Formats: sequence, structure tokens, C-alpha cells
Amino acid sequence: MDESIRQLIRGDKRMLSRLISIVEQEGPQGAQVMAQVFPHCGNAYCIGITGPPGAGKSTLVDSLVKVIRSHGLTAGVIAVDPTSAYSGGAFLGDRIRMQRHFMDPGVYIRSMATRSNPGGLPRMVQGAVQLLDAAGTDYVLVETVGVGQTELGIMDVADSVVVVMMPESGDVIQTLKAGLMEVADIYVVNKSDLQGADKMVAALGAMLHMADASDGWSPRVIPAEAHADVGVAELYEIILEHREGQAAEGLLEKRRNERSSREFTRALQAGLLQQLHEGLSENEVLRDALEQVAAGRAEPYSSALKLLEGGISHTLPAPPTRATSQNL
Amino acid sequence: MDESIRQLIRGDKRMLSRLISIVEQEGPQGAQVMAQVFPHCGNAYCIGITGPPGAGKSTLVDSLVKVIRSHGLTAGVIAVDPTSAYSGGAFLGDRIRMQRHFMDPGVYIRSMATRSNPGGLPRMVQGAVQLLDAAGTDYVLVETVGVGQTELGIMDVADSVVVVMMPESGDVIQTLKAGLMEVADIYVVNKSDLQGADKMVAALGAMLHMADASDGWSPRVIPAEAHADVGVAELYEIILEHREGQAAEGLLEKRRNERSSREFTRALQAGLLQQLHEGLSENEVLRDALEQVAAGRAEPYSSALKLLEGGISHTLPAPPTRATSQNL
Repeated sequence: MDESIRQLIRGDKRMLSRLISIVEQEGPQGAQVMAQVFPHCGNAYCIGITGPPGAGKSTLVDSLVKVIRSHGLTAGVIAVDPTSAYSGGAFLGDRIRMQRHFMDPGVYIRSMATRSNPGGLPRMVQGAVQLLDAAGTDYVLVETVGVGQTELGIMDVADSVVVVMMPESGDVIQTLKAGLMEVADIYVVNKSDLQGADKMVAALGAMLHMADASDGWSPRVIPAEAHADVGVAELYEIILEHREGQAAEGLLEKRRNERSSREFTRALQAGLLQQLHEGLSENEVLRDALEQVAAGRAEPYSSALKLLEGGISHTLPAPPTRATSQNL
Repeated sequence: MDESIRQLIRGDKRMLSRLISIVEQEGPQGAQVMAQVFPHCGNAYCIGITGPPGAGKSTLVDSLVKVIRSHGLTAGVIAVDPTSAYSGGAFLGDRIRMQRHFMDPGVYIRSMATRSNPGGLPRMVQGAVQLLDAAGTDYVLVETVGVGQTELGIMDVADSVVVVMMPESGDVIQTLKAGLMEVADIYVVNKSDLQGADKMVAALGAMLHMADASDGWSPRVIPAEAHADVGVAELYEIILEHREGQAAEGLLEKRRNERSSREFTRALQAGLLQQLHEGLSENEVLRDALEQVAAGRAEPYSSALKLLEGGISHTLPAPPTRATSQNL
């Protein structure tokens, strides 16, 4: 085991930041880190917080961190910021607000700017969650801004998914449209001092009552005023309940392993397509075939099939040998 | 060359139908057909007709076929019906209406039920266009119902894209949202006897005026009443103009070849992913790795990378040898 991993496991925050930065680069060095970190993972519980912009997700995260700390437990926060004109200012403002935990050694906060990934949450977020896990963090909170498809990717890492909404807006409709209803374990109607909150809680409850409970858990609805820390201790209790329910039925491990399997397959797919992409410029047979097609001299579909049948995959260039690095 | 292909090229309609059915199955036999047909393609001009449901696409196609026939030219119609609760009844009704051309030997009509394909127009549609082309058809009209992403796939086959809308509805907004503005060469404001048609024509014209003309063609807007054959001869003239402009600049061939290149790459990608899918159950190394990951004993990302670096693509099973069939 590298000395860097040993330092991480001892909870060294500077090493944690350094390793997250390596994982962020999504290269072979990051993969090597993950392989070494993996055996030390599995103790942290990951909470995904998502919902439409303006619902108060960051304030809720902030308040939830306070509750977690009040139980003597540690927290890590990963704020996923899909690079988008949408977020920007407000998001940065939120991060500054979170700084009330800045001096607390039991809290680690990291904002990750990611390209929006239609396939789900970027790989680097999963890596960061695992690094925090290995570093001994009790709760990892992943917050995603609800713009686009990133929020569905929250399922790729979270053991419990919390969807935050505020009353009066079209949040329920937006949430429905984004497909979040299928991934939410707990709904928080935030800013519940605003008009329409009770109605929204009742409406969500009625809607959920109609849906079947999957795997023994019926999604819950809870009002909160995160800015005043109201309802957040109750949210924490519900998360605990969800966690214990899953653990009792062996679902926690089962789901984590299913997520791992999906990630494995996705990584293989992406890698193969990358090899094909390189092959189209480097591999002579592939390059010639593409040239024939591009010049209108060969039919594309049958040309592709012929190459596939001939085992073109057997000639694809493998990615560069992994960097051997003892000193990360 | 197979006798079946010879019959197709002579314009045998029964053989055309039979070969389209083979291509519809998307197997190696279809690929073999396409490879033989390819050298005989390139004379037909393909017109894509798309737009929101209810805009009168089928009526316009019907009327356009009449104009094409009046010039002594032949027409093929492929109506793409994405299997969806959306279309159904109305679509079938349209097909029945088209039967006024049913007895005309210069017109071939085929409806293709396809699974909705997020990657674009299904491969089988492209195959059918090429078969019609090889059979000596002058104009192939491909009509897609504007539900979802299929309409963008129209670019994969069409030399000219016609977007049909009707006044007063939210059609312009819908069209903008679907990304059709980027693919349309000609806009038809159909049912132009309805209120708001002039305004819509003017608004579209103003909008297009702001956009840059790409490759020397400024998209055109034309009002029509397809059910009364009004404006359709003019539409035909504009299509001719677009065709001649592209031909003069060598763009027609260039674009067709670009489409072929994309199709080639897509087919390779799909084939490789299929090989991976099979490998995950058949290939011992892959299967073992997946089992390790699924059991929580191995880290997914680094496991995948290790396999890729080790050249796992070199061990993927090739698809079954192509069926050798002299008698199609």
C-alpha cells in the first residue's frame, strides 16, 4: 500500500484533497488510487440531496451537517456543480455560507465542477465519495443542482436520496418530469413557513400513498425550514430509519454491489468506444475502411459488420500502460 | 450479383418489398443485401418530412407525390411509425388516405413500425431508402411523426428536410424545442387557410432572417393547404432549387458521404458494445471480473481499466459468421 493511502486512512485531510484531485483527472493514476482505497470503503453512509434550483439544498445540507456533528459524527460534503450558465453565482454564494463549518475538523467540504454527463453522475464524484469513506467519514452528503440529468445520477452513489422542494413553485411538476419521483426516498418540503407548504406536503403524501412501496420502504414527506434548523433533526431520524431498514434486509450491500456492477460495465463500454475512436485513426484496416466509406466507395453498414465479424476488436489499440507511481 | 438484386434493379416491386422485409430484420442477411445494392444507389433524391403531430404531414406527402407524378417521375414513401401510444389510430388513418396512389405503379408506399431509437433514425429506414433508390425511384419521401428524437434522425437520410407546421398551435415553440430549426431546409405552414397563418409565415421568416445561411442555402418558408393541393407545386420547386444548389456545389455527394461515415462509426460502436455484452456472459475473464465486482470484492473502475489495458477487446466473441444465402 502506498504511503499516501496510509495517510488517507489515518484521516489526513491534505492527503484527502490531494487524492481527490488525482481522481478528478480521471486517468490511470486515479484508478490505481481507487483500487487501493477500495478495501477500506463501506463504512460511510452516503446521502444524496437533489431538487430544483432555489429549493434550499445547500442550506439543508448545512443544517444536516450540524445535526450529524451534534451526534459526534463526521461529515463530508461534495457539491456537484455541473458547469452551466444556470448555476454560477448562487452556487458560489452557497459555498461561502457553508464556511461556518470551515474550521471544524470533523467536516470536509469540496465543490466539484463537472461537465454535465448524460450517462449519470461523473465518475470523479463516486471516487471522491469513496475517498471520504476510506478516510473514516461517517456521512457523505452529495448535493447536486437539479439542472438536467445529473440529479438522476445521484442514485449511482447515494444510499438514501433526499429530494428538496419548496412550496408554491412548480417544483412538484418539475420533479416529476425529471424522473426524480422514482429515485426519491425522502421528500423535504423546505421553506415550510411559506404559503402552500401544508398543501404540498399533503399532496405529495397522497401521491406517494398511491404508489407501491418498493423493497419495504415507503417514501416519506417532511416539512422543514432549513435556514432555522427546523425539521432537520427529524430528517436525520428518517434517514437513520431508512439506513437501518436497508441494513436489516441486507439491501445496503446488495444495492452498493449493483451500483458497482453498473459502474464496471459503463467503464468497459466507455473504454471500448475510446479504443475504437483511436483505432479509427491509428489502425490501418479501420482507417482504410472508413476512407472507403467516406469516399462513397463502400456501403457503411455491411463494411462495419464485416470488420466486426472479422474480429476488429482484436486489433484495437489498448490504452497507454498505467503510470507506475509510488509517490502520488 | 444475386438474382434478387437484379430483379430489384429492374424495378420489381414484389422483390423490393421482400428485400425491405429482410433489411427490417437488421441481421447479417440484410447487410449482405445492402452491400450488393450499394453500387446501384445515388440517383434517388430523398426528402424528409417531419413536424409535430396533426400538422398534416401525410396529406402533404400525398399531395407532393401527386406533383412528382405529374412530372412523370416516380415516388417512394416510407412512413416511419415509432411504436408509441401517441400515434396509432390517426397514423393508420393517414395511410389509408394515401391509398389513392395505391394502384399507381409509379408509387411505392411502405409503413415501417420501429422502436424509438434515441440514436437517430433506425438503420432499417436507411436501408429501405437505398433499396428504393436502387429500384430506380426518383424521389423517396420519408415521413416521421414528430414524437421524440426520431425526427432529428431524418437528417441521416434526407437530402432536403421539410418541417411541416400549422398555425395557431404551439408548433413553432415545439419545433424549436425539438431542435428541428437546425435541420430544416424548408418550412411549410400548412392549413394556411386557418387564422394566424400569415403571422406565422412572417414570424418564421423574420427568425430565419436573423440566422446565418449555412452552405449558401437560406431556409425558406412557404404557406400551403395540402388538402387542396395549394402551395405544393411551389414546395416542389423550392426542393428542386435546394437540390440543384447542393449539386452545383458538390454538397450532395459530400453530405451523403458524411452520413455514411457516421453510419459506419455508429454500426461499429453498436457492434462492439454487443460483443462486450456477450463477452460479459461468455468470456471467462470478463465474467469472473464482473462477479468479483458484483460480490463487492473488487473496485469496479480500476477492474475495468485493467481489463481494457490488458486488451480485453482482443478476446471478445465475434458475432456469428454471416449467413451465406444465394436465395434471398
